[in-house]
Amino acid sequence: LPGRKVLIVYAHQEPKSLNGSLKSVAVEELSKQGCSVTVSDLYAMQFEPRATRNDIVGCLHNSEMFNYGVETREAYKRRELSSDLLEEQKKVQEADLLIFQFPLYWFSMPAIMKGWMDRVLVEGFAYQFPDCYNSGLLKNKFALFSFTTGGSQETYTKGGISGDIRYLLWPMQHGIMHFCGVKVLAPHICFAPEYVSEEERKEMLLAWAQRLKTLWKEEPIDCSPEWYFK
Amino acid sequence: LPGRKVLIVYAHQEPKSLNGSLKSVAVEELSKQGCSVTVSDLYAMQFEPRATRNDIVGCLHNSEMFNYGVETREAYKRRELSSDLLEEQKKVQEADLLIFQFPLYWFSMPAIMKGWMDRVLVEGFAYQFPDCYNSGLLKNKFALFSFTTGGSQETYTKGGISGDIRYLLWPMQHGIMHFCGVKVLAPHICFAPEYVSEEERKEMLLAWAQRLKTLWKEEPIDCSPEWYFK
Repeated sequence: LPGRKVLIVYAHQEPKSLNGSLKSVAVEELSKQGCSVTVSDLYAMQFEPRATRNDIVGCLHNSEMFNYGVETREAYKRRELSSDLLEEQKKVQEADLLIFQFPLYWFSMPAIMKGWMDRVLVEGFAYQFPDCYNSGLLKNKFALFSFTTGGSQETYTKGGISGDIRYLLWPMQHGIMHFCGVKVLAPHICFAPEYVSEEERKEMLLAWAQRLKTLWKEEPIDCSPEWYFK
Repeated sequence: LPGRKVLIVYAHQEPKSLNGSLKSVAVEELSKQGCSVTVSDLYAMQFEPRATRNDIVGCLHNSEMFNYGVETREAYKRRELSSDLLEEQKKVQEADLLIFQFPLYWFSMPAIMKGWMDRVLVEGFAYQFPDCYNSGLLKNKFALFSFTTGGSQETYTKGGISGDIRYLLWPMQHGIMHFCGVKVLAPHICFAPEYVSEEERKEMLLAWAQRLKTLWKEEPIDCSPEWYFK
């Protein structure tokens, strides 16, 4: 939609990968719609995933006993978080929609992207007790997890060895995004692209472009246990 | 048990934290039993969480199109993984029991520990299709996730806002450890230590020491969907 702002948080080492193409397709399609699109290319940025004392500029609130949650909350209030975090928070603040594009690593996102969650979504910025879940501070934003898997779709079913794919979405969609008040759109999953033909991979890209055309009309999922485990 | 080997993978920035104490209690109690205990102190090691080309020494299998899974699998065969990975794999190989000690970050492990999973558990070392799940290459080992939470136990129940704590154990216990053939012992969870008295925190340490005394008699959980979602 013209004027809408989108942040794509992207974690793949290889621009020529399917993930790289999925990212490019999204930039292209959303830009064509008149959206303003920003990409955080985590590997290219050499984004720091480790939550350490370096995230706080200046003195600590309690240097006797380092508590990352307390220190980043206090540093956020004082505007003393490290500049890479402030930049990511600015991008999140401005965005209407966050797209996370990544290959599934061990039933979850790659560590570099988990580090983005751990470090960027600071208390006071993304939530503030009791303002979490439906009243999280990032309400009125949408998020969409777009990822590729190693295993086939059959393995990720209720009776399959890896269980329903929705089981592994719970920590990411409910535990992170919903916790911050973000509304969650249905995930976009490309199963086992390494084991399909070039033709089928092209169809995966087309399907993503197609979905993006009507994305702004989509309703968020009902992010409750029933959606995941029913 | 005398002679048993334990690897504790530990992720907390502050030695004086409850996580630091839980780690120390485990080292002490297991050593007293005659176990040989190794600790991978991830923050102190400045462990690298990012999965990149640097993990492969020498030439790439396919430098035109970087595929981390393929490259690390091939590098493992050639014994050309980076030395930090080889060291961690050696520790895992020798261990009878892996203990993961960490504070829960966003319904999961901190990025630095996720990076340990992403980088250390290479194809060929930890699994080898079709040898995964019950026939994973790390069978005959046990794993135990020991962690602290921010939220209280009531929030992590079926009717609570954060859902049953078991929901978030699925990706870690089933998706990672069970996938590699590792048998999973019941998790050890200290709920909301920041919000209880010093006395109660001491009891948490005692309870952990107490559990460790009879740990080797424990049966692994039945790591199936029923355990998590019934």
